Amino acid sequence: MNNYVLPVELHNRIVQAAYEHRGFTPEEAAQAARFCELASWHGIKTHNAIKALHLDELFGSGNAAAQGCVPGAVMEKLDSKFAAAQQWNANRKLGQAVAFEAIAEAEKLADQYGVGMVSVDNAFHYLWGGGYVMDSAKRGYIAYTNCTAALAEVVPFGGKHPTLGTNPHSWGFPTTDAVGFPIVIDWATSTVAMGRVQQFKREGQPLPPDSAVDAQGNPTTDPNEVAALLPFGRHKGYGLSLINELTAAYIGGSLPTLRSRPQNAPEGEKTTPNFFFQVIHPEALSGRGFVNGRGQADNVKAVIDDILGHGNRDDGRCILPGELEHNAAVASQDAGGLLFTEAEIAELKTVAQEAGLELEPLAQA
Amino acid sequence: MNNYVLPVELHNRIVQAAYEHRGFTPEEAAQAARFCELASWHGIKTHNAIKALHLDELFGSGNAAAQGCVPGAVMEKLDSKFAAAQQWNANRKLGQAVAFEAIAEAEKLADQYGVGMVSVDNAFHYLWGGGYVMDSAKRGYIAYTNCTAALAEVVPFGGKHPTLGTNPHSWGFPTTDAVGFPIVIDWATSTVAMGRVQQFKREGQPLPPDSAVDAQGNPTTDPNEVAALLPFGRHKGYGLSLINELTAAYIGGSLPTLRSRPQNAPEGEKTTPNFFFQVIHPEALSGRGFVNGRGQADNVKAVIDDILGHGNRDDGRCILPGELEHNAAVASQDAGGLLFTEAEIAELKTVAQEAGLELEPLAQA
Repeated sequence: MNNYVLPVELHNRIVQAAYEHRGFTPEEAAQAARFCELASWHGIKTHNAIKALHLDELFGSGNAAAQGCVPGAVMEKLDSKFAAAQQWNANRKLGQAVAFEAIAEAEKLADQYGVGMVSVDNAFHYLWGGGYVMDSAKRGYIAYTNCTAALAEVVPFGGKHPTLGTNPHSWGFPTTDAVGFPIVIDWATSTVAMGRVQQFKREGQPLPPDSAVDAQGNPTTDPNEVAALLPFGRHKGYGLSLINELTAAYIGGSLPTLRSRPQNAPEGEKTTPNFFFQVIHPEALSGRGFVNGRGQADNVKAVIDDILGHGNRDDGRCILPGELEHNAAVASQDAGGLLFTEAEIAELKTVAQEAGLELEPLAQA
Repeated sequence: MNNYVLPVELHNRIVQAAYEHRGFTPEEAAQAARFCELASWHGIKTHNAIKALHLDELFGSGNAAAQGCVPGAVMEKLDSKFAAAQQWNANRKLGQAVAFEAIAEAEKLADQYGVGMVSVDNAFHYLWGGGYVMDSAKRGYIAYTNCTAALAEVVPFGGKHPTLGTNPHSWGFPTTDAVGFPIVIDWATSTVAMGRVQQFKREGQPLPPDSAVDAQGNPTTDPNEVAALLPFGRHKGYGLSLINELTAAYIGGSLPTLRSRPQNAPEGEKTTPNFFFQVIHPEALSGRGFVNGRGQADNVKAVIDDILGHGNRDDGRCILPGELEHNAAVASQDAGGLLFTEAEIAELKTVAQEAGLELEPLAQA
C-alpha cells in the first residue's frame, strides 16, 4: 500500500482549523490535533483525525438536536473529600481535552499518594484510550483507563439483546527502558468491532466464530445477518465489559441502552458516556526486595526477557502489546511525518477544505 | 450428587487443627479456616480446605527443602512515602492471613484517600482471589486483586513455551442492595486450568479449541498431548496475564519460569509469587449527578436492570458474575452448613485424622 507523508505541523494545523471551524476553542482544537497526531503517529487508523471528526459530526457537536459534545463547554471539578480521588463533570466538553487533563491530574495525585484516580461524568468519546495511557507510561507511570462506549452493541454472555458497549480497557506500563517502548494493553471487550463487521460484509467473508448474533439473538458468522456483537472470551469478556458499565453507574452514567441515543431517552435520563482514569507511581508498588543487584527497572526487564525467552520470539509471532504501535511510530519517524493512504488523504483534503485550508502536494513514503 | 452437610463450626475446628498441626500459629490457622469456610460456603470446590492443605503440602510448609510458606512467619510492613499505598514483605507468611489483612488495610486507605493499594512481595498462594474481593464488596467497597500464579504453565500468545502463570484477576462490586449479592468477576487468564486438563484426560474428552499446546508448541485438543496452556481470548487474555507479571515485577517478583521452582533457581533468585490489592470507596467515584431522583445505589441497580432486561434473562442463561457463588451460599444457608460430596468427606476425614480429630457422622443434604 502506498502511503503519503503528511508533516506533523501541517496535519495539526488542518485538524486544529477543522475543530475551530466547528466552534471549538483554540485550546480544545489544539488538544484534538495533538491527540490525532498521537494516534496517526502510532498507526492507529481507527481513531485518526478522519474518524475523530466523523464521530464529532454524528454524536458530538454536529448533532444539532442533542450535542454529545459542546464546543467551549466548561468543565466542573467537584470538591472531593477523598485526597487521591477527583470527580469531574465534563459538561460534554471535547473528550480528548478532558482525557489529557484527567490523566495529567491523576499523575499528580499518584506522585503524592502513590495512586490517583479521576472519574468523569457527562463525558464525550475520548477515541483511543491507549493513547492516554501510552503517553502517561512514557512519562514513567502505570496508567489505566476505561470508558463506556457510545452505543450498546454487545449482548451479555447468555443473553440475546445488546445492552453493553464495546467498552474498552487500556493499560500502559513504563517499560521504555526495558524494551524500548511502553507496553500498552488496549482493546475493546467485544470479539470484533462493528466496523470490522462492515469490512467482512464488503469483502464477502464470514466473521470469526463467537463474534456476533442475528436479530433473534442466535450466533451467526454471516456479516449480513449481524444484529449485535458478542463479548470476547465468553463470560470473561462479559465480566470485563460489565466493569465499565458498573464503574460508569457509580460515577453517574445512566442506562446503557439509552447511551448516545437521546432520541430514545425519556425525560430526565442522561445519555452521556463516562471515563475513569487511574495512575500508579511505580515506586508505590516497590517492595524494595529486588534480587541479584537489579533495580526495579532492571527487574521488569528481566521478567519481560524471561517471558519472551525460551524460544518464544524465534519465529517473530510472539510480540508485546504496544509493539505494533511502536513499530508504526518508528515508521513515522523514518518517513518524517504521519503516514496516510491515498483514500485517507482524499478525506483529509475534504477536512482541510471544510476549514478553508489547502492540502499541499505530499511526498510518498 | 449426594451432598453431606458439614457444620461450619466443625469444619473450621478441623481445618484450624490441621493447620496448627503443621506448625501454623492459632491466628494463622484461624484465618486459613475462615477462608476455607468462605470458599466452601460459596461452592468454590477448586479452593476448599482439601485443596488449600494439599497446596500447602506441595509448595508450602510441606516442602521441607524450600518452604514456600513458613508457619509463624513475621510480615514486615515497609515505610511508604506514598500515603495511599503500602508495600509489605510477607516473608512467605500464610497467603490467606496476609490477603485478609491486606484487603482490610486497603479499605482503610480507601476510606481516607478514596483509593488504597497494598502490594505484597515474598507471598504464598492466597487460593481464591474472588473470596477477598467478595468479602470487601459485602462491606461496601469496590475491590480488586491480582497475583502471580504458582507455576508458569501458560504460553504467551504467538509463542511456544510456557512463561506465564494462569494469573487470575478478581473484581468485586458492592451490589448487594441492587441484586442481592456482590458482583464478583473472577477468573484465570488461561482458557482452562491444568486441573481441567486432567479431568478431560480422565473422561477421555477433547479440550475446547485454543486452550492448550503440545510439547512442540502446536495447538492441541488432545488432553494426553498437553504440555502447556494458552491464554483465553488470544492476545487479549495474553495482555491480561502480562499485567500480573508486570505488576509482580514492579513489586519485586523474579523470573516467572523460576516461580515456585526453587530447585531450578540459580543462587540469589527469588521464587515467590506476588499479590496486589486495591480498594476504591464507591463515593470516591461519584460525580453526584444521578438523574431521576436516583441515589448512587439506585443508579447502579437501574443500570444492571437495563443490562439484564430486554428479554436477556428470559431463558435463564444470562447471569451475573457472582450469581452462582450466591446461589451456592443460599444452598449452604438452607442446608445449615457446608456442602461436600462423599469423596470430599472421605478426604476431610483424613485431614481430621492428621490433626487428631474425628469427623462425626454427617447429615445428607
